[in-house]
Amino acid sequence: MHYDELAELGQQLRVDAIRAAGAAGSGHPTSSMSAADLGAVLLAHHLRFDFEHPEHPGNDRFVLSKGHASPLLYAMYKAAGAIDDEELLTFRELGSRLEGHPTPRLPWVDTATGSLGQGLPVAVGIALAGKKLDEIPYHVYVLSGDSEMAEGSVWEAAEAASYNGLDNLTLIVDVNRLGQRGPTREGHDLDSYARRLHAFGWHTIEVDGHDVEAVDRAFAEARSTIRQPTVILARTLKGKGVKAVEDLEGFHGKPVKDAESAIAELGGPRHQHVEVRKPEQGVSQSALDGAGKSGGEVELPRYDVGDEVATRTAYGHALEALGSARADVVALDGEVGDSTRTEFFAKAHPERYFECYIAEQQLVASAVGLQTRGYLPYACSFAAFLTRAHDFLRMATVSRAGLNMVGSHAGVAIGQDGPSQMGLEDLAMFRSLHGSTVLYPCDANQTAHLVASMADLDGIRYLRTSRGDDPVIYGPDETFPVGGSKVLRSHGDDDRATIVAAGVTVHQALQAADVLEEYGIPVRVIDLYSLKPVDKDTLNDAAAATGCLLTVEDHHPEGGLGDAVAEAFADGRPAPRLTRLAVRSQPASASPEEQLRAAGIDAEAITAAVKLLVERVVTP
Amino acid sequence: MHYDELAELGQQLRVDAIRAAGAAGSGHPTSSMSAADLGAVLLAHHLRFDFEHPEHPGNDRFVLSKGHASPLLYAMYKAAGAIDDEELLTFRELGSRLEGHPTPRLPWVDTATGSLGQGLPVAVGIALAGKKLDEIPYHVYVLSGDSEMAEGSVWEAAEAASYNGLDNLTLIVDVNRLGQRGPTREGHDLDSYARRLHAFGWHTIEVDGHDVEAVDRAFAEARSTIRQPTVILARTLKGKGVKAVEDLEGFHGKPVKDAESAIAELGGPRHQHVEVRKPEQGVSQSALDGAGKSGGEVELPRYDVGDEVATRTAYGHALEALGSARADVVALDGEVGDSTRTEFFAKAHPERYFECYIAEQQLVASAVGLQTRGYLPYACSFAAFLTRAHDFLRMATVSRAGLNMVGSHAGVAIGQDGPSQMGLEDLAMFRSLHGSTVLYPCDANQTAHLVASMADLDGIRYLRTSRGDDPVIYGPDETFPVGGSKVLRSHGDDDRATIVAAGVTVHQALQAADVLEEYGIPVRVIDLYSLKPVDKDTLNDAAAATGCLLTVEDHHPEGGLGDAVAEAFADGRPAPRLTRLAVRSQPASASPEEQLRAAGIDAEAITAAVKLLVERVVTP
Repeated sequence: MHYDELAELGQQLRVDAIRAAGAAGSGHPTSSMSAADLGAVLLAHHLRFDFEHPEHPGNDRFVLSKGHASPLLYAMYKAAGAIDDEELLTFRELGSRLEGHPTPRLPWVDTATGSLGQGLPVAVGIALAGKKLDEIPYHVYVLSGDSEMAEGSVWEAAEAASYNGLDNLTLIVDVNRLGQRGPTREGHDLDSYARRLHAFGWHTIEVDGHDVEAVDRAFAEARSTIRQPTVILARTLKGKGVKAVEDLEGFHGKPVKDAESAIAELGGPRHQHVEVRKPEQGVSQSALDGAGKSGGEVELPRYDVGDEVATRTAYGHALEALGSARADVVALDGEVGDSTRTEFFAKAHPERYFECYIAEQQLVASAVGLQTRGYLPYACSFAAFLTRAHDFLRMATVSRAGLNMVGSHAGVAIGQDGPSQMGLEDLAMFRSLHGSTVLYPCDANQTAHLVASMADLDGIRYLRTSRGDDPVIYGPDETFPVGGSKVLRSHGDDDRATIVAAGVTVHQALQAADVLEEYGIPVRVIDLYSLKPVDKDTLNDAAAATGCLLTVEDHHPEGGLGDAVAEAFADGRPAPRLTRLAVRSQPASASPEEQLRAAGIDAEAITAAVKLLVERVVTP
Repeated sequence: MHYDELAELGQQLRVDAIRAAGAAGSGHPTSSMSAADLGAVLLAHHLRFDFEHPEHPGNDRFVLSKGHASPLLYAMYKAAGAIDDEELLTFRELGSRLEGHPTPRLPWVDTATGSLGQGLPVAVGIALAGKKLDEIPYHVYVLSGDSEMAEGSVWEAAEAASYNGLDNLTLIVDVNRLGQRGPTREGHDLDSYARRLHAFGWHTIEVDGHDVEAVDRAFAEARSTIRQPTVILARTLKGKGVKAVEDLEGFHGKPVKDAESAIAELGGPRHQHVEVRKPEQGVSQSALDGAGKSGGEVELPRYDVGDEVATRTAYGHALEALGSARADVVALDGEVGDSTRTEFFAKAHPERYFECYIAEQQLVASAVGLQTRGYLPYACSFAAFLTRAHDFLRMATVSRAGLNMVGSHAGVAIGQDGPSQMGLEDLAMFRSLHGSTVLYPCDANQTAHLVASMADLDGIRYLRTSRGDDPVIYGPDETFPVGGSKVLRSHGDDDRATIVAAGVTVHQALQAADVLEEYGIPVRVIDLYSLKPVDKDTLNDAAAATGCLLTVEDHHPEGGLGDAVAEAFADGRPAPRLTRLAVRSQPASASPEEQLRAAGIDAEAITAAVKLLVERVVTP
């Protein structure tokens, strides 16, 4: 395309952004208009993408990190012929796939955006796949706003990108100087961004974002830069081209008022069609080629009943085994792989291990990026530190991402390190994520089986592991369906109460059951290793048989096992008597045994609580 | 002190770190040993601190961001005479205030550390107080590790510090080149850190961290630098001074094995006492001087019943009013103050408003820092984006911080912007925090009262606000105790079911109650505006009267209103029949009304659910 045609295309994108937001009565046209020329040049001259085959492994990727500029993205799709004008005007309507912020309901969108500062981190994950696994020369483009450069996650990503030499990654920053409620810290000072990114190891280009010729040269330079990622810092004007809004405050996230005259000012509607260049044919993903993607039988580690093994250790060995059987398995860790045991995988399969250092947001973002390319990520850190990535996990659900998350060092049972290292809110966080699965094994064989089972589920799968050694109580051939549970003790209708436990508290519950039996109080013990989905049938059977249930968990009382069991009975039917033991005080340093006792979740506390519960049942 | 005495003091700190970890049988002596000379010089020559009066407003602050190096901190306390040798050796014992990672159980610790990358952000909050509010020349020192420089939160803080010209802040980075499981990305390349921090606007000093004379000069230069924060990048060796561990991998977080010979190698135990210089006398906090700290009567905004007002708007006006009555109130927002309505406070009290831009971790960290100095922070963003700061909120509970958090744009009711902007996990997150309070008002007068009531509670107080206008249903003089609820409809024992709602669903519940009454099904409606603590008495009364309860919430089913109500009945007593409506599908763009309908939480869905529940009760 000639440069005047590119400029025309930019105007077309502006007009269509205004029209889409106008039709919706909401949206962000001015944020789209600043980046319209950048989008035009990228689409017409640099992006290699087959819109009819979005699954083509050679396709470039385009991540709109400033997801609120979705009208620009959809206008680009229209220009490329991927959607028609009629669909463009369904923007933000019920049922339309053109949502307020882009999601993978659209086949050309890899990852949902709209929480700022997440586009670059996820793009780093995609580029890592391209560089380290796929070995395909696709390029990953990210268009971000200038405001979102304030998010720390952007700098985690900046470091990961340069450290890994991701020259297949280009970040375009639309420096329009205006955030939502006013000017950004840096305004139009492109140099300030350039200095920072340069210091982080990036190749930097500064450009007038409305000079299509300069932008074109910048994209070419970015694509030909080797051994480091490139940022194009583009000086732009928010609302560019319409005097009533151009470079002015107060017009963020609002349709342009007099749309008709604004469109006229932009030269009226246009209907240019862009022939987007297709990727090279015949490329395929080397890492996933041939046999083994989901082929070989997994030879899970086997542990003898009675041995003392930490579930974190079993996770490490099981993941190593899964990696041997399946070529699509990749592992990531936040620089604690020696503690979490991800190091077993890292040593066995170094080419599929991604060290993310102490940057948990990037840990999750890399996993999200890798799964867009067909890989099966297991991402691990201390359970407590996964809270650092809560917003990334939330957005991953909007992205329909399939992730295996593993959190170690759960609960007060870690002992002396103290509360900063204890995962006591992780179950609440993972249960609240849409479509998630939450697993909490109590022994090594159970852990190994769950590591394998979680692989092929949808959505976010969470496995909670423990630091300390606990006895193996299940044989290696026992099975543990997701959504199931295990009845570890039962005397049929003689049971006078049910103890529901998971993880470390299963062992405490079994001890308590022994003591209670000596007291003449037979109890049922359920190992509720699957907290979401939860085994309603077994819980209902126990409720019918015993009339009362005690839950006991190494977690705060809110959002964990107790809530999961309560939810199982929230179906309008008569509910059993319920009571719960959980960590209700702020822990300090102490030995694991002292911690369980102080929190009131050890065998002694369980015994006392069951006695109380049973007395109540007998003499109400 | 002479330099040779300083070096001796460094050796003493090493010896004591080894002794403390040895006594505990766990801990991080090698991470303490690398920073021992830095700690010695700071303590003996630069820190101005009255250990007998930790509340002295003129005291410098010292934040140990690498909290695992707590043996160093406690060894410094011993050298300063704040604790004795006997207490030092209680490290990590049950009941000892010398926890594995430092917490404010110690009067000289302002903020808990142990989740890396949080020390600098909180220190920025303290320095902001010193610079902008206290106007006292205390200095804030932060000692961080090199690994934690990978955390994005460090760079949010770096930007906030330089932007605000915090020359009262010095960061010391202990560049010992070894993380937990191996070398850091940058190793001993001090320049790479210097380039980055320089680009972020910091004054940088590179130094040999074991050359006490050079370190001494660096601290002096840092304290005399004006208009920008300073970083001292210190090249050090992990485990310095003990050949068996010095600069070697594999010794992170482990006591030194042959402690006796290691101590001998360091020259044996020493018992130097350091006279730490006291701060200037006669200083006081200008912003909190005189009348008004908690003086004046708050003139809350008053709304007329029937008016349509968004609760976010009422929050903004109430906070403005609270700020007029109390000089200790400060407000922070993540660059969305025009949407959250924090802008009303910002315009009325600009000197007490902190714009945090799009950096939610720093938003919370600044609030934590400000409250250590006696201020009463209200920190606000979209509810969805507060998940970004989950780990900071978690650590704030370990810090015993008092924070008011406000999350706007809750739930699907926001409408067209789509799921990326919807807070659907926020209640689960805030409920799971230890000692938290969770409030969710449904009308403007209720909101205003809760904004005032939350001010004087302990711990983290969360207020959830809504985007859309809803009718005012309470008069301006109604009161709303925290832990209470409101029975909005009741026909005494004739009620056949209870609907429990909060926020936007209260209005849907009232509509449903009208329809149900027409059908001849009188129901009770409870506005459960306090989700934690929850009003067990009113819920129990309703259960006794109606036998069944329906909860309805604009949140995912896990961790929110439904779980809060279920928990109220988890006391071993007979429970009512419970059922719950919540957001169980992934929302897309649609109008607010369409969203409530699609999620099955509107009046129609409530009506249908109550009918089903009542039929079950009648004909089980």
